[in-house]
Amino acid sequence: MRNSKLTTLEEAIRRSGLRDGMTISFHHHFRGGDKVVNLVVDCLSRMGFKDLHLAASSLSDVHKPLIEHIKNGVISRISTSGLRGELADAISRGLMEQPVVFRSHGGRGSAIASGELKIDVAFLGASSSDELGNACGYSRSDCAKSICGSLGYALPDARYAAHVVVITDDLVAYPNMPMSISAADVESVVVVDSVGDSSKISAGAIRDSKNPRDILLAKQAAKVVINSGYFEDGFSIQTGTGGASLAVVKYIREQMLQQGIKASFALGGITAHMVKLHEEGLIGRLVDVQSFDKVAAESLKNDPTHQEVSAVEYASGQHLGSATHALDIVILSALEVDVDFNVNVLVGSDGIIRGAIGGHQDTAADSALSIIVCPLLRGRIPCVVPKVTTLITPGKSVDVVVTEYGIAVNPARPEIAERLQAAGLRVVDIKSLAEKASSIIGTPEPLPFGDKVVGIVMNRDGSVLDKIYNIQ
Amino acid sequence: MRNSKLTTLEEAIRRSGLRDGMTISFHHHFRGGDKVVNLVVDCLSRMGFKDLHLAASSLSDVHKPLIEHIKNGVISRISTSGLRGELADAISRGLMEQPVVFRSHGGRGSAIASGELKIDVAFLGASSSDELGNACGYSRSDCAKSICGSLGYALPDARYAAHVVVITDDLVAYPNMPMSISAADVESVVVVDSVGDSSKISAGAIRDSKNPRDILLAKQAAKVVINSGYFEDGFSIQTGTGGASLAVVKYIREQMLQQGIKASFALGGITAHMVKLHEEGLIGRLVDVQSFDKVAAESLKNDPTHQEVSAVEYASGQHLGSATHALDIVILSALEVDVDFNVNVLVGSDGIIRGAIGGHQDTAADSALSIIVCPLLRGRIPCVVPKVTTLITPGKSVDVVVTEYGIAVNPARPEIAERLQAAGLRVVDIKSLAEKASSIIGTPEPLPFGDKVVGIVMNRDGSVLDKIYNIQ
Repeated sequence: MRNSKLTTLEEAIRRSGLRDGMTISFHHHFRGGDKVVNLVVDCLSRMGFKDLHLAASSLSDVHKPLIEHIKNGVISRISTSGLRGELADAISRGLMEQPVVFRSHGGRGSAIASGELKIDVAFLGASSSDELGNACGYSRSDCAKSICGSLGYALPDARYAAHVVVITDDLVAYPNMPMSISAADVESVVVVDSVGDSSKISAGAIRDSKNPRDILLAKQAAKVVINSGYFEDGFSIQTGTGGASLAVVKYIREQMLQQGIKASFALGGITAHMVKLHEEGLIGRLVDVQSFDKVAAESLKNDPTHQEVSAVEYASGQHLGSATHALDIVILSALEVDVDFNVNVLVGSDGIIRGAIGGHQDTAADSALSIIVCPLLRGRIPCVVPKVTTLITPGKSVDVVVTEYGIAVNPARPEIAERLQAAGLRVVDIKSLAEKASSIIGTPEPLPFGDKVVGIVMNRDGSVLDKIYNIQ
Repeated sequence: MRNSKLTTLEEAIRRSGLRDGMTISFHHHFRGGDKVVNLVVDCLSRMGFKDLHLAASSLSDVHKPLIEHIKNGVISRISTSGLRGELADAISRGLMEQPVVFRSHGGRGSAIASGELKIDVAFLGASSSDELGNACGYSRSDCAKSICGSLGYALPDARYAAHVVVITDDLVAYPNMPMSISAADVESVVVVDSVGDSSKISAGAIRDSKNPRDILLAKQAAKVVINSGYFEDGFSIQTGTGGASLAVVKYIREQMLQQGIKASFALGGITAHMVKLHEEGLIGRLVDVQSFDKVAAESLKNDPTHQEVSAVEYASGQHLGSATHALDIVILSALEVDVDFNVNVLVGSDGIIRGAIGGHQDTAADSALSIIVCPLLRGRIPCVVPKVTTLITPGKSVDVVVTEYGIAVNPARPEIAERLQAAGLRVVDIKSLAEKASSIIGTPEPLPFGDKVVGIVMNRDGSVLDKIYNIQ
């Protein structure tokens, strides 16, 4: 094809004009199955690049090889929504000289759109692309090797990065349409054996839970939804990661059928549960920034009313047209909630980073009703605490906390407390939950934090919300 | 709805921060049926604005009221792809102090993307929108009032304008998805009685011709296509405005069926003919920057493999991923072709502006084979001439000229001349065509141009190609 952009990864990097100190970006739609970050950073390392800023939409266990690249000086700065596994562990202990910058998905989108986060070269994995760079998270060819569905987190990178390299494992005939990433935004196309292992997109934080406590919490949260005053025809809903929050949709389905209530849209990470309700006619539109499992990814590919949206369109606080601004109900998980309803989803009670901000800040802030599902205790770890280890979502954005020991409602929302009590649900003071946890576990020793800042937590408006110190 | 952007036109204008001297923009997807330009400019006039730069993707007969707004100083500059009717006549005679800037559709997209054409406030008509501004050129509601299909020429405005006002005649429930214009790019939404008369989108230059000479030319052009060497499985095609060029697709269909040849995609203004071939499986994808009739608009609405693209994605010369770079064959019309294969599609042989650059420059330059269909004479007007009145598409981009008196092939493409001759087609020297026209009509008097520049013709790369002087 004339003007083909097809080239090798090395040549694409050379063409990009990448220099030491610049910012490279990646998406995490393959989650634990991602192969692009390691592939590209290995190549950059071989080519002798140093001092790069890696700005990923998120990072996980699979990115452990970055530890060596950090030690060797290839990567000196990281921006991400989250960190997990050995990489998170090493960074928590002070691996990097510069703190990791953590942003929400909407916050990252806003920062890219505003130019606050300037991306020099984006390396975007895609399950199909043509030679000009029309690319998407699925393939319509017989040679499809992978599928991740929505490329929502990659779309701000594609639109705003100075240089875009599409990396695909299925080169298809032009024009690869409908497309997610437009060829007009792409400079090079690179074909590799595999961009990701699709079987792992629903692993980790978004697996379907069979844990009886998760199921109990999900059922309680469903009761909260149904009696909140927001469960009416045309309502909209999002469920965050975590077994309990994801499962809520299953339990509200029955009431939707009984009461003849339909949702206008479901937002965010889209799951097989939501696809089922959509196909049954119970949810009008699926607004998908990230496909949480293969069923969702296939639905995005085949159903025009299952719409991919960018991180900006999903959850930017600076764009009033973002979908979170139209969201009624969000159900989210937490590592810790404190007595001021502040939430931590990033740093474990041992001081080690083990999570991601995701859309937590964004959806809690913009939705009409935000519900946190969280057990009182995880083993010997209290989850309702006097003060969160790290502040991720400010308490003023949080309306209801559902635990197995009762439901706490933010005093700023007395009308919701009244409705839940009227429905016979057990509404309790959040302080009593923290006291209960403390009475069972005792008061934990203070964490042995050092004085090196290893992480900075940004609020979605670009301000600094908290700092994470090294753990000793 | 929380954060609704719904407001009146006056208030939307006030919120936009528009000031005298700024640039406003419009699309022309309703062609002769457009109601948005006049509505908005009337309002701006009432509000007292002066000295505005009107940057439309094109203007036509229906925009005659702009004459008064120019006289009154509301509009002092115009950028457009074309002008027709009384407005064109008045401008040709020297109505404006500043020359109109004419750009191709791809050139306009590039200029907007690069910041050369900076839009302060875009007023974008849409056949549906929700309260946050997700909008498109059709509606899925029962209250649909209009349809224009693709909003391709509006998409660069939506993406790059500092402020975007969506104007719709069908406000639908959120989320209006799939959408063309994303709510993330929109500041205000205004509801009006009508944004356009859909019955007029296939009027004027894109009506289906029954003219016997057009049919003869279309059949000849089809023979050129079939014998050009580019008619092979997987080829791609675009037909420009003008009865003869639009009709070519009808006549190549039979050969596609006989020879078992399928097209990979059809590009550009999409017509009912192309939709038919697509639905028959003869064209893989429809890549639609502008729906040329209601059948095409309905197809865009209902068929996921009929893909809307922006003017940038369609034809930008500065974006190597634009679709014209993958285009094999384009069939275009002309007002005049000269002996150097230069083409004029903008200024009539009477010196009056009566056309539009459209995608002419873009597709001729990027396609592998560009074919101009043009009668030798239109009444007493010669169409093959020694020198075009106004240079729109340079001869080096033009490969073949089809007239009813023979087919001229650019000497730079001898292999094509050989193939056509081998197929028994009558290949002639273009000079002999000009001489033939001259021998029938005689040599026309020179046009009485004055010395005031009324129009500047830009090349798609941003350079100046020609100037248009006032006609006396």
